[in-house]
Order: sequence, then C-alpha cells, then structure tokens
Amino acid sequence: MKKVTVIDYLIERLHEIGVDDIFGVPGDYNLSFLDDVEKSSSVNWIGDCNELNAAYAADGYARKKGVGALITTFDVGELSAINGIAGSYAEHIPVIAITGAPTTKVQENKKLMHHTDATGNFKRSYRAYKQFTETQALLGFENAGAEIDRALTTAIIKRRPVYISLPLDVAHSMIDAPSAPLNLTVQNTDHNKRVAQRLVDELKKAKRPVILAGNEIMTFRAKAEFENLINQTHIPVATMLLGKSSINEENPYFIGTYYPNYGDKRVLNYVDQSDLVIVFGSKLIDVNTGSFTQCFTQKETVVLNCDNTDFFGEKSRGVNINNLIKNLENFDYQFDFESTGLNNVTPDVKYEDNDDQELNLSQYMYAFKNFMKPDDTIYTETGTSQYGLSFMNLKKGVDFEAQPLWGSIGYTLPAVLGSQIADPEGRHILSIGDGSAQMTIQELSLIQRHHLKPIIFLVDNDGYTIERVIHGAHAKYNDIAVWDYTKIPAAMGITEDTMDVSVATNKQEMLAIMDKIADDRSKAHFVILKTKALDAPELVKKIGKSMSLIDKSHFYGEE
Amino acid sequence: MKKVTVIDYLIERLHEIGVDDIFGVPGDYNLSFLDDVEKSSSVNWIGDCNELNAAYAADGYARKKGVGALITTFDVGELSAINGIAGSYAEHIPVIAITGAPTTKVQENKKLMHHTDATGNFKRSYRAYKQFTETQALLGFENAGAEIDRALTTAIIKRRPVYISLPLDVAHSMIDAPSAPLNLTVQNTDHNKRVAQRLVDELKKAKRPVILAGNEIMTFRAKAEFENLINQTHIPVATMLLGKSSINEENPYFIGTYYPNYGDKRVLNYVDQSDLVIVFGSKLIDVNTGSFTQCFTQKETVVLNCDNTDFFGEKSRGVNINNLIKNLENFDYQFDFESTGLNNVTPDVKYEDNDDQELNLSQYMYAFKNFMKPDDTIYTETGTSQYGLSFMNLKKGVDFEAQPLWGSIGYTLPAVLGSQIADPEGRHILSIGDGSAQMTIQELSLIQRHHLKPIIFLVDNDGYTIERVIHGAHAKYNDIAVWDYTKIPAAMGITEDTMDVSVATNKQEMLAIMDKIADDRSKAHFVILKTKALDAPELVKKIGKSMSLIDKSHFYGEE
Repeated sequence: MKKVTVIDYLIERLHEIGVDDIFGVPGDYNLSFLDDVEKSSSVNWIGDCNELNAAYAADGYARKKGVGALITTFDVGELSAINGIAGSYAEHIPVIAITGAPTTKVQENKKLMHHTDATGNFKRSYRAYKQFTETQALLGFENAGAEIDRALTTAIIKRRPVYISLPLDVAHSMIDAPSAPLNLTVQNTDHNKRVAQRLVDELKKAKRPVILAGNEIMTFRAKAEFENLINQTHIPVATMLLGKSSINEENPYFIGTYYPNYGDKRVLNYVDQSDLVIVFGSKLIDVNTGSFTQCFTQKETVVLNCDNTDFFGEKSRGVNINNLIKNLENFDYQFDFESTGLNNVTPDVKYEDNDDQELNLSQYMYAFKNFMKPDDTIYTETGTSQYGLSFMNLKKGVDFEAQPLWGSIGYTLPAVLGSQIADPEGRHILSIGDGSAQMTIQELSLIQRHHLKPIIFLVDNDGYTIERVIHGAHAKYNDIAVWDYTKIPAAMGITEDTMDVSVATNKQEMLAIMDKIADDRSKAHFVILKTKALDAPELVKKIGKSMSLIDKSHFYGEE
Repeated sequence: MKKVTVIDYLIERLHEIGVDDIFGVPGDYNLSFLDDVEKSSSVNWIGDCNELNAAYAADGYARKKGVGALITTFDVGELSAINGIAGSYAEHIPVIAITGAPTTKVQENKKLMHHTDATGNFKRSYRAYKQFTETQALLGFENAGAEIDRALTTAIIKRRPVYISLPLDVAHSMIDAPSAPLNLTVQNTDHNKRVAQRLVDELKKAKRPVILAGNEIMTFRAKAEFENLINQTHIPVATMLLGKSSINEENPYFIGTYYPNYGDKRVLNYVDQSDLVIVFGSKLIDVNTGSFTQCFTQKETVVLNCDNTDFFGEKSRGVNINNLIKNLENFDYQFDFESTGLNNVTPDVKYEDNDDQELNLSQYMYAFKNFMKPDDTIYTETGTSQYGLSFMNLKKGVDFEAQPLWGSIGYTLPAVLGSQIADPEGRHILSIGDGSAQMTIQELSLIQRHHLKPIIFLVDNDGYTIERVIHGAHAKYNDIAVWDYTKIPAAMGITEDTMDVSVATNKQEMLAIMDKIADDRSKAHFVILKTKALDAPELVKKIGKSMSLIDKSHFYGEE
C-alpha cells in the first residue's frame, strides 16, 4: 500500500473535493507542514494579513468554488479566525478550518507552552470551535486518514465548516494513501420523498402559490436545477434578502425581492395574500421578514430547509435541497402563471435618480444597476450597500453575495478577494461602506500579491450609516476615524497599474468614472464615493427603522 | 432605595473598580445602551476599528490602569474579540468583556435573528467564552446587580477577564443602586501563611538561592511590595521573559534576565547552580526556559503562582502573591548577597554595535538602550522585538510589556495605544515588526482621534522574521505584502502635527531621528527602520532555534 504523510493525505483530499488554494497565516505550530503546502503542486498557499481576514477570504472562495480551506496556528491563530468560521456556519458555507497544534507528546505531557494559557489544557479552542462547526477531527497517528475523510465528507454533505486539529508530529507521520475517492453522495431519504409528495399535493390545492427562494439553493449549488424546476412548474418565485440570486432574475417566473412593507406593491400583495407560501431553502428570520412583519401566517406557510420541515406548523426534520428538487422533478405539475397577473411584468424597485449637487446614495444605486453586467459577482456589505442593492433586479447569471444573516461588517472585503482568487476572470464588484472597510482594510494587500482585478466602490459617508439609521444618528459612537481612502492603496503597496484609484463627489464624476472602468478588465478599480453623512435612500431608512424594532416595545415588556 | 438602570449600575461599578474608558465597537445589540455609556460622565467611550483591536487595547489599558473593559455586539462582535480576551486570560489581565444581546423575550422565544445561526441557540458564544474567562454572568431582571458585583469582584481578585452578557431589555430595567462598595479583599489563607513559612525555612537552608521573578508580580500590582521585600531580604532576583520589569532593574539585588544558554554567563551560572530556585509569580514555560533547557532541576525548584504551589515536586494549590509577600515581610531573614560575587555588578547583555552600511537590528537594539528613559512604558511585539529587547537592562521605573506567553502577533499596536489612553502623559514606546503591524494596523487611528503620543519603531525587514528564524527562512509563506509604511499614517487621517513620520536606512539616520524625537513630547513619532530581511541579532537567532526544537525530535518520536 502506498504511504504518504498525513499532511500530504490532507492536501490530496482537499484537492479532490475542490480546494486549489488554501488561505491562512503561518505560526510556529504550523510552519513545518506549511512547507508541504508550499511544495505541493495541487494547492497554492494564499498568505493573509490576519486570521479573521483569512477566514472571510476562504468563505468567499468557497461560495465561488464550492469549498474553501484555512490553516491557522494553535489558539492565537484559530481564535482570531473563529468569527469568520462562525459566519460560514450560519450561512452554510463549507470551509475546512485546519489548525496546527503542539505535538501529541507535548499535549500528553501537558507541557506549559506558548500560545496557550500554561495550564496544560490543549482543548479549549477545540471546545470553542465545537459551537461553530459541523464536526471536529483531532487527528492522531491511528486514524488520521479516516478522520480526514469523515470531516471533509461531512463538510461537503452538510455544507458547513468543519474543524481539523493537526499536531505537528502527526502531520509528518506516514499513513496509507487514499485508496478510493470520497463518497459524497447525500442519501435520498423516504422523508425527502414524502415531503416532495406533500408539497405537490399542497400546490395542486393552491390558487396563489409562491416560492420564497432562499440561500440553500445557492450554498448547496442547486441554482441550475432549481431554475429548471421553476421553468417546468411555472410557480412564481420571489427571493428574500437571504437568498438573493438563488434564481436568475431574468427568468419570467421571478416576480421580485420580497421584504415586508417595502418594495414593489404587486410583489407584496401577491405574497402577503398567497394561500401557499413556500420558504424554499431558508428560514423566516428577522432580516428577511422586516423583523417578522410579514402578513402571511403559519396557516399558509411551508418552510423547507436542511434543519427543519414545517407544513403549517407541523414540524419534522430537514431536507436536502438537491434531493428535494430531484424528487419534485418527477411530478407532473404546472401552475397557471398568467393567473397571477404578473406575467410580462418585472417588478423592480426603481431607485430614484436625482440631480442633487452633492453625491447621494440614490444616485449611486440608480447608476449601479446600469453598471452591473450579466455574470458579474457582486458583494454587498451589511448596511446601506446590502439593504440598498438587494432590491435591484439582477442581470442574468449574476451571483449576489452578502452576509445578511450573520452580518459581520468588514466580511465582504476579504471575501470578494477570496472569490476573485477562485475565479480570476470573473468580473467582481464590491460595494462597501467606510466603517466596514476599516475593519478588514489590510486585506486589500491580496490585490497586489495576486494581481486581482475587483471593482471596489467604497461609500465614504463618515460613519456607520446603518447604525445611525437604526439608532444613534448623531451619537459619537457611530463616528469612525476619518481616513483618506485615496491614499490607502499606495500605502499598501498597490501600484497604479495593478489598481487605479478615483474619487467622485458628484453624480457627473461618478458616472464618468463608471463609464471609464466599466469595460476595463486590465486592472482592479477602487472608486471612492464621497457622500453626505446619514445619507441613505428611503428604503434603507425604512429597513433600519424596522431593525430598530428589535430594541423597542415590540420585543420587550409587552406581548 | 435609589433605583438605577442595569446599564447605569454596571457603569457605576466599572468606574468604582477603576475603569474610566471603555473600548469596543457599536452593533445593533448594544446601540441603545451605548447611549448611556456616551452620556455618562464617569466613563469615556473609545470606539475601535474592529473588535480584536478593541480587546487588545483594553488589555493594554488594564495593564496600566489595573482593569479594562470592552463592549461588543452579540456573536459577530464578541467572537471577533475572543482571541484578545483569551490572551488577557493567559497573561492574567482583568478585562471586563461585555456583550450586548437580544432581549430576553427574543431569546426565550428562540426567535431567528441576524447575528446568530438562526437555530434559536443564543448560548454558543457564551459557551466559547467559558473557555477563556474566569467567570461568566448572563444578566437577568432578578439578579443583574448581584451578578455584576460577582463578576467584577472575581475579575479583580483573580486578575482574569470575565464575561457579561447584557440583553437589551435587561439593560434598561430598573434595579436597586449599589448600596456599598465592592469588597475586593483577597482572604489571606492559612495555606498562604504555611507556604510563606516553608519558603523561609528553605531559604534559611540555602546557600545560593535565587528568585526568578514572574509576571504575577506585575499583573497583581505587587511591584513596589516585591521590591521592598527584596530590599529587606537581599535575595538575588533574576527576571524571566514572562515577567520582565517585575522588579526595578536598577535594584542592587537584580542580577539580570535569565534565559537558558543565553545571556550573561554569570547569571546563567548562578541560577543553573542554585540550590534553591524560586519561581515567584510565574511558571516554567517553554518560552522562559529555552524550551525546557534550564539546568536546575525539580530538586532545587519551588514554583509559586496563583494556580499551583510546588515545593520540589510536592504540589498543592496556588497562592495570592500580594498576601504571600505580606506574609513573607513578617519573617526575619536576610541573605548574604555578597556571597554571590554579583554585588556591584549589573550583568548586561551588550548588543553589539557595528558600523555596517545597511541598518541592522544589532545597531537598533544597541541604540534603543540609550533611547530608553526612566519611567518609560515599553511594548515589544512577539518576535525579534520582544526577544531582542528582553535582555536589555531597564532603567528605573520602566514598565516592560509584551505577550510572551500568549504571543499573538499584532497585539502590541492596539495595546500600547490602550496603555497610552490610561496614561496620556507617560512616555510610551512600541517596537514592532512589519508582519505584526499589518495585522492590526488600522488601530493607529486611535492616535488622531485621541491625540495620543506614542513613539513607534517599526522594523521593516520584509517578512515574519521570527518565523523565518524558527523555520522556513526563504519560504514563501513567510513573505508578507510589501507596504510603504511612510504612507500609512496620512492614509489613516493622521496629520503631521499629531504624528511625524521618519525613515532610517542606516545607523546615522536612525541615530539622528532618535536624537530629534527623544525629548519631543509634543506629538507621536513613527519611525520606520528599513533593515535587511532575515536580519536578527545572534541572540534572537538562538532563541528562534530553541523554539524550533518544538518541531523536532526533542519533542516527537523519542523520550
């Protein structure tokens, strides 16, 4: 039997499931096996400025590529990354979180080591990670191969991050090489088939059904199959904030983005008066229901996701969305889409353009729609970017990425770069606010090191605007440091032929810049939009207001 | 009985224990009580660029002030901070880690909320924090006051971070105001008195005793009392890396910094041939023993710290160092210091100056010693800065801060700024490498926002030098992005009258800059030292080599 080192086994299996690039930061419990990563022709090492940024980048990579991987060092590295992995867990993104650990001998002898609390307890970060990963594997000499296989298979089948702890001595021990490819099949269960059957039974009874398409369609990589199903069944589809771009928005059966009390009235009316609302591959969460202000009730609602099945309040276990779609394809069902009155109408939230002298977000968001091209990958940061642009109808083939559930600001900057590394030729656009950009700004460094070509729109309006809108409009705590973003790229070693930098202070300047860079794929583009503080389009203000309900009497003191 | 809100109660108690400034980042589960923090005349809000930097800054503040505090938001904020709090835990720094949480109503109803994984589980970050804090308090309506008191008292008595979760509705509920100050007395136990007695008995038998002074002397704020004890007993004192500046190094009984196989031979010989080695307020950890290569054995060694007492292998529970010192003061004991042959000799590691054309670290470290003034606060980042400068004898009153045990690179940049906020008039110096600086660079923003005046020496030698020295000298993974550090301050809005920026590429330039800024307390100073890659003084190479033993056969495969 051919033998390989554990680290080479791990690299081979990572490559097998689709990882070509590994993110992370070196530290002295992983240095010796980083040699093997660097030597490997199967994978590239992508060094990051810090571990949280590395985790965010691995997440963005995984959204594009199907899976991502991260290597950090014991305790200090892995704990810096944990918020990124927790975000991947919440939003169903499989990232393999690998951490180098002291040798088994050191651990067994409870030696007092640096990068620990010097109590001989080597399990603390592992216990923390248990809260935020689907499974954990502490690799040992006897079963490292089996544990690697189990962890990676789990990540792919369940579409969630997993944790692998790799002690240095185990990393270089010899084990049997993989003998067969991993079996990544998800069993098509009787439960899933029954759910499909019941769903069709309910559809046949319904006069105004609607599917609210959710993020599992994207994260379980079922977009094409889902669109086929819709083309076959003609069921009206709206997306929610968590799940935007789960369907091609030029599809004739796509009716718009649903958000209670906001958006196109025709979509709202149709959904709110629906007799069968199918939440397909997601959940009803505060962020996609305007803090639970939807008008449809449990009596009309079916919720289907990997954690739960819920038919009008009758709950059972979750379903795998790929198998569900496959099961549904077998049924002979078609809805009379014309009866909705929404055929040949594409409800769209029209951002209001205006001619104000000072650049404002309405002008930006209006222009953004024209700037977008088919097949773009668009990242929008939590806050005004995400809430504002989520109501824009997407062109065909656009991947729209955000973190609406986890909502960790700063995430999108490393994430769009991770995505670009997975897809160097794809046109990637980031829309991010200044407060968020400050959180993870150093990861712009990836642009020079890897010649990436994203288009970055940075909305500089002096503070955490979405927080201002939710609460504390003029509060000092919503102020941030005043930076000169035009100077950041050069300070981080990014040359003009790698990325150009421009600033717009009014609409004409913004449109001229957009025009200039729209088809220029030769380099990255960094566009600073200087807008008024507290500037947010009406819709963003409404969303912020509904989020502030969290604080108010709606949720405390009274029923 | 006077009533106050829970948040006001918390602020009052924080102020009572010594917190005047609270670090953190706003988010929508803490916004509404940040209003109260901002309104309060007892505390100031110090907004940070991200939560990990905020935790590091709160740690630096606590080292100077005695205690620090941090406010983050649920899940996404607190998980970003956790590595900082874990470092405070390891190194015995009391930081009060407060996180805003959804209302109790939301939690009890298991609502599916943003900043969670939408499973209705609100305890995941709390469970993670349990691994890295001395105690945790989930504040509720019925016992918020008692829980706040318990948590803060624990932090101060045990000198470790604590976790407080504050749901938004609880924050604004009314409770009885504090009725009496907290009782922060640490009971002086019989165990502690017996340990003191035994220690003196052993001292009386010893001919060559030595105290290896550790970090608990600093973190339990016992420096003055410890120095009095040494002046009373004349016991020779050496410090270790974890604990440097635990004693005034101009004290006649201070004999040097002990590190096996490195440093002044007279110190090494004295300690290695000692018949009573007293590890006082610390532990024998890999970083302070050259990876366990000390020559003294368990037969000669007593270890005393808050976790353990160990007399030559006989273990029992730990001791509080303040009480231990108090108990020892009662004894009539004095050592004949002249018998060591070390009287009137201050062993010193002499950095070798040289006249190389290219600036090198030996020149820098030689010059650093002269640049240092009495009463300085010096922060050295893990790596060449810390290992290099730890062997420099300190002038009187100098606080020398680093993170030798936890060793999370990037820590010192926000930490020195947190310390400066606690002590605006004190002269603060930071020595940090480029790789480390990139991790947390955005926190330089605090300098402009709060008019801080640190002196920052940034060693720009193109990569993670200490990693290169340990392993992978030319490995790509030890490369980092190439920045132009001279441009960073202006990009982050730091004006020339707040901080000047200079670069040295050779010794003359460096000395000229040092001369110019040495007494200029009118602003901050940022000095970039461009040195050769892989440049490290001999001693740093030796330390790096001993750390690489972790990877090697010394620790795996054989006894």
